[in-house]
Amino acid sequence: MREITVEDLPDIARGAAVLGTGGGGDPYIGRLLAQQAIRRHGPVPLVDPMDLPDDAVVIPTAVMGAPTVMLEKLPSGKELVTALRALETLIGKKATHTISIEAGGLNSVIPFATAAELGLPMVDADGMGRAFPELQMLMPTLGGISATPMALADERGNAISMNTLDNAWAERFARTATIEMGCSSAISLYVLTGRQTKEFMVHGTISLTQRIGVAIREAAAAHRDPVAATAEVLGGRRIFQGKLVDVRRGTEGGFARGEVRLDGLGDDLGAQLDISIQNENLVAIRDGQVLASVPDLICVLDTDTGEPVTTEMLRYGLRVSVVVAPCDPRWRSPEGLALTGPAYFGYDHEYVPV
Amino acid sequence: MREITVEDLPDIARGAAVLGTGGGGDPYIGRLLAQQAIRRHGPVPLVDPMDLPDDAVVIPTAVMGAPTVMLEKLPSGKELVTALRALETLIGKKATHTISIEAGGLNSVIPFATAAELGLPMVDADGMGRAFPELQMLMPTLGGISATPMALADERGNAISMNTLDNAWAERFARTATIEMGCSSAISLYVLTGRQTKEFMVHGTISLTQRIGVAIREAAAAHRDPVAATAEVLGGRRIFQGKLVDVRRGTEGGFARGEVRLDGLGDDLGAQLDISIQNENLVAIRDGQVLASVPDLICVLDTDTGEPVTTEMLRYGLRVSVVVAPCDPRWRSPEGLALTGPAYFGYDHEYVPV
Repeated sequence: MREITVEDLPDIARGAAVLGTGGGGDPYIGRLLAQQAIRRHGPVPLVDPMDLPDDAVVIPTAVMGAPTVMLEKLPSGKELVTALRALETLIGKKATHTISIEAGGLNSVIPFATAAELGLPMVDADGMGRAFPELQMLMPTLGGISATPMALADERGNAISMNTLDNAWAERFARTATIEMGCSSAISLYVLTGRQTKEFMVHGTISLTQRIGVAIREAAAAHRDPVAATAEVLGGRRIFQGKLVDVRRGTEGGFARGEVRLDGLGDDLGAQLDISIQNENLVAIRDGQVLASVPDLICVLDTDTGEPVTTEMLRYGLRVSVVVAPCDPRWRSPEGLALTGPAYFGYDHEYVPV
Repeated sequence: MREITVEDLPDIARGAAVLGTGGGGDPYIGRLLAQQAIRRHGPVPLVDPMDLPDDAVVIPTAVMGAPTVMLEKLPSGKELVTALRALETLIGKKATHTISIEAGGLNSVIPFATAAELGLPMVDADGMGRAFPELQMLMPTLGGISATPMALADERGNAISMNTLDNAWAERFARTATIEMGCSSAISLYVLTGRQTKEFMVHGTISLTQRIGVAIREAAAAHRDPVAATAEVLGGRRIFQGKLVDVRRGTEGGFARGEVRLDGLGDDLGAQLDISIQNENLVAIRDGQVLASVPDLICVLDTDTGEPVTTEMLRYGLRVSVVVAPCDPRWRSPEGLALTGPAYFGYDHEYVPV
């Protein structure tokens, strides 16, 4: 066990936004929120999942909604506690730990705010090893674990809790409630035992995000290539560098959806890369050929600084590099692909691992 | 206290559909559902609200949604119990009585099914003295009573509960959840003490619906005018008789909305009457002049039989008479009109009491 302090958060948020593959929220906002809470309440213990007691009550907190909206409608932190408390009331148990459901600039860091506020330790793991747009897309779903009982809260004090038939229904009801809350909400769901956390969550995600964040920062400071440094930590590779020449992006059905086009630069001069987005980067297509797709990671980075570029930050003229990296191997199983593969998102190409 | 048996239900459902002013659900379906439950579990005690102990726990059950949809997606009764139980869990108390939130073919009768199923007595009262389309439009809202904690359930077993900032937010969240459930749901909300029931609910509504139902049946059997008989029991008057020549009706935002036009017959030959609908009949306009509007009652009856014609039953060629009647006087207060008057529904005419 070690303690996460205010100084650790910038690297963690930066690295988390890389794993967020465009989604999972803005690292700047996530960092500010968590830093504020840790300044007020002190550092947060980070626990290795293997050190959890089997009967620990591990309750995730996160924000749900369109990242484009969260930039304008900042979470206050209060609604995270409201959601967690509503869920505790429903299950009649208190959380012993909190944890992140997905890697992302907000959703890796926000549970630190919850943890600091409530004096809980946080677990060094997450539910995806990346970010996905829908809340049934968690590793525990593959283990047959229910997303509900689940609670949502908004900044006004509205709280909704639910028990649903399955995790896809939880996504449907939570999405419409989130839209009604103004396209973003605080959520608490997937109550896990310590044992389930060990078995089903992706271990070490927070430490990995920190390593990525440090690698980018150090490479940029030493005038080494920060994109190459990121690809190395991820075990991935750069597939493109170019300039953003077209961004179409809208908020539809509570998601940020869009299409992005890059014109190649350097070795990629003359080529084009298209990326499709539903909160996260789903598919990368070079001159008509699919180079990578969900569930693998497609990360857009600023070519000069290596800083991750989230969906809501994409804009004309930006010089970016695209790094792809393999997802957690469990997503590549038939069940994993049914939940998060290209067919689920309506694409007709086969999944080809990067 | 008296007992309501299977034989009482046809008159109650018929009279309730008159007070439902087009909404509140289909009397045939409501009656079948309640008769089935009473046949299985025995008669239901009907309690005068003044006889309630002050600390009684009175929990309404109802169906929410578009009446047009409820005709095709029948409630099974099971989801009413699921909703009530979810609410009991949330408040940590058991219901001692159930009650109807509005008068209507379904919503006056459905609580008998809940009552029979759970062995609870039912209170002879309701929350509106008529039907209204939105769930904040209850007399207890005027008394500052919260609609939440509230629970919704569907026939699949999905259950949602909520605590909201105010009753308008409860309506918003419940409406979107109901839409997601397929445009109809079972709800349980407005937990009342016996004392609050006495103070804020409309007393004697079930007995009134039965008197209306009996008056229509007996007048029709004796070849007297059933429409005149209804107007007399309601303390209202017939404002039009005619033939339905146009019906525009759609399901929008979870409501049945529409416009209906009648061509006059008999004394009204040559005149036209237009009725606007949001689940319930909202406004009646004769040749451009408003004759009646919410919160007063606008009831459409079959001219020959006196049977109430609900929104979903309106069809070209039907010979109907329109009866208007005064609402509960509390709806005519400034607060009552703000909640249920023509301005709330977007009309720019003043409210003129019938």
